[in-house]
Amino acid sequence: MVGKEFMLEAIRLSFETMRSGKGGPFGCVIVKDGKIISEGFNQVTSNNDPTAHAEVVAIREACKKLNTFQLTGCEIYTSCEPCPMCLGAIYWARPDKLFYANTKTDAAKIGFDDDFIYKEINLSLSERKLQTEQICKEEAIKAFEEWQTKQDKIEY
Amino acid sequence: MVGKEFMLEAIRLSFETMRSGKGGPFGCVIVKDGKIISEGFNQVTSNNDPTAHAEVVAIREACKKLNTFQLTGCEIYTSCEPCPMCLGAIYWARPDKLFYANTKTDAAKIGFDDDFIYKEINLSLSERKLQTEQICKEEAIKAFEEWQTKQDKIEY
Repeated sequence: MVGKEFMLEAIRLSFETMRSGKGGPFGCVIVKDGKIISEGFNQVTSNNDPTAHAEVVAIREACKKLNTFQLTGCEIYTSCEPCPMCLGAIYWARPDKLFYANTKTDAAKIGFDDDFIYKEINLSLSERKLQTEQICKEEAIKAFEEWQTKQDKIEY
Repeated sequence: MVGKEFMLEAIRLSFETMRSGKGGPFGCVIVKDGKIISEGFNQVTSNNDPTAHAEVVAIREACKKLNTFQLTGCEIYTSCEPCPMCLGAIYWARPDKLFYANTKTDAAKIGFDDDFIYKEINLSLSERKLQTEQICKEEAIKAFEEWQTKQDKIEY
């Protein structure tokens, strides 16, 4: 298989999840050494999990299979440009490359919040639609100070 | 309990996960009607799951308990300002309010990528460290067109 075929599989998943009523039209596959190691499709509404986007599902599955929390050497093929949640998850997983097909603007046009969330992230906390307030910084920072001096930590 | 006590519980979780070696110093609680309905702590390294940040774990748990994919009427207390992945998850879950303690700058200072990912999100695809390429748009957009005219879809 080459790149295009992996994306066509992600797109096939996007049709399957939509037509089966499991979730929105989104699919994702993760590839290592030229082979698909995990597949994910959107299951927000069928699993009552707002984090169960295709990419997050595929990343969790790939990491489980590889027994690691990093996707070094992997490529991610997703049928739509990742939303901020999924893009963040991809950065944390650190794959080698990301391929996408539809854009966040395409997603916005069919009623998904991807583009709205991208815009919100760039606003100052006081301008966001999501009410946000900082409290208890003095207590919380002590945990960060302890982390900094901790000897046996696993960094990620 | 009032707001500050919920945050102190999130901070307690941040210490617990760090000291037990389960993950980074991050904790989160979700509150509905004045009661904690779920707790989450970071378990990226102990569960081999790069998406298992405190907020994502707490959101998934709260939705499971409430049997819904939306956290209407809920407040989220997290010991650190959410990274883009978690902020995205919070927007998708749609709680009423978000409280945080440490900031993304504090997290960057102790070696976490939160601030780096925030900066990357704002760059054009070609400027990002993460190699990104668009392919197969023509095939993928057909799923979006079908979603738009689908009669029995559950929107989220």
